[in-house]
Amino acid sequence: MSIQVKEIMAMVDHTNLNQGALVSDIEKLCSEAIENGFCSVCVHPSNVALSAKLLKGSNVKVCTVVGFPLGENQPELKALEAKMAFEAGATEIDMVISNSMVKRCDYTGLLNDVNGVQASCPSCVHKVIIETCLLTQDEIAKVSEVLATSNCDFVKTSTGFRGDGATVANVALIKSVVGDRKLIKAAGGIGGANDAIAMIEAGASRLGTSKGKLIADQLQGATVDNNNQGY
Amino acid sequence: MSIQVKEIMAMVDHTNLNQGALVSDIEKLCSEAIENGFCSVCVHPSNVALSAKLLKGSNVKVCTVVGFPLGENQPELKALEAKMAFEAGATEIDMVISNSMVKRCDYTGLLNDVNGVQASCPSCVHKVIIETCLLTQDEIAKVSEVLATSNCDFVKTSTGFRGDGATVANVALIKSVVGDRKLIKAAGGIGGANDAIAMIEAGASRLGTSKGKLIADQLQGATVDNNNQGY
Repeated sequence: MSIQVKEIMAMVDHTNLNQGALVSDIEKLCSEAIENGFCSVCVHPSNVALSAKLLKGSNVKVCTVVGFPLGENQPELKALEAKMAFEAGATEIDMVISNSMVKRCDYTGLLNDVNGVQASCPSCVHKVIIETCLLTQDEIAKVSEVLATSNCDFVKTSTGFRGDGATVANVALIKSVVGDRKLIKAAGGIGGANDAIAMIEAGASRLGTSKGKLIADQLQGATVDNNNQGY
Repeated sequence: MSIQVKEIMAMVDHTNLNQGALVSDIEKLCSEAIENGFCSVCVHPSNVALSAKLLKGSNVKVCTVVGFPLGENQPELKALEAKMAFEAGATEIDMVISNSMVKRCDYTGLLNDVNGVQASCPSCVHKVIIETCLLTQDEIAKVSEVLATSNCDFVKTSTGFRGDGATVANVALIKSVVGDRKLIKAAGGIGGANDAIAMIEAGASRLGTSKGKLIADQLQGATVDNNNQGY
């Protein structure tokens, strides 16, 4: 595995947020994550303890979702959900903002929601899902600016559950606002190595996808290296 | 308004679970619910306090959703979400079961999940969403039987967020299992008076829909009364 491929693999949150995931599905997810050197597995709160057990002793982290996928829970509840997940073994939290707060221009509420979750388990890595497909370009820029002043670590594009996922244009827009103040996670619809590389080139440093293994396989083949710009 | 129309209106949970609902949307929802004599408004937890304030002094109740729409949260979290919603003014709780528990045949977990939410605010009406579109006919029957032994009040077909909503066949199947032990709420895709009447005839006594006003208008016109069987 080349250094570049390893670097890209280490950006992958290997994701299974299916309803009805079996124990065997989570076992497969975790073993694939170890085998391919992914950053984390991203699972529902109900699968955090199982994943933490399966990944014990490895470098792969457990990422979970909070207020997912609609984000319209009470802020206090989101903070509790994050804390509970941390106590069960999660060290990365992907929370969903309240789209109502955005539409109502309640940016103080938005900031408190995000910082409340962060404060509930400050040692975790915190990613904030803004669900770009529900926002105008102006709203994406505004929300990104608000988040740039928050205590989160990443702005994340999408849940993958509501309309379109990450687009190169939206990742670039978020990057143009947050600059180096926050990192970016692209998620939703990343179907292979070409998508992954395009997102990274636009500014993403983390990739949420269930296609991590395919991306690894494609990157290790010759096809992608020849067809893309620089990777 | 005839007695029959009034009875059907009193079965409607007038629903706005849109992400990004404005204050004016919730105001409209609540005033329509009062005007038409609906049972409740069904809103996200973030809109419970506002709805309770708007409906104060009326007969319309505040219904909210818990673990919505995926149900893969920790059971303790769902119980806290319900309790918090009750404290904010909700008196009806529509919780989502964990589909993973169903697929893993963890019926003890399922029962504990449901009873935990019920115990967190026992004075509320408790409805349990099984998301029929993710289940086989056998699983619908099995889950209905488990719920029939739980402390919930209603079995509810669907969130409306995942694939198909209520079908007459699934309502009838649930009814054949639960009999008079539990009530049934049909939700998802109820687009007008004909749908509403079909669900009631199959065994539903509560209807989750955003088309409550249209149903009222249609029922008060002559069309539906002439075209349907008995209503």
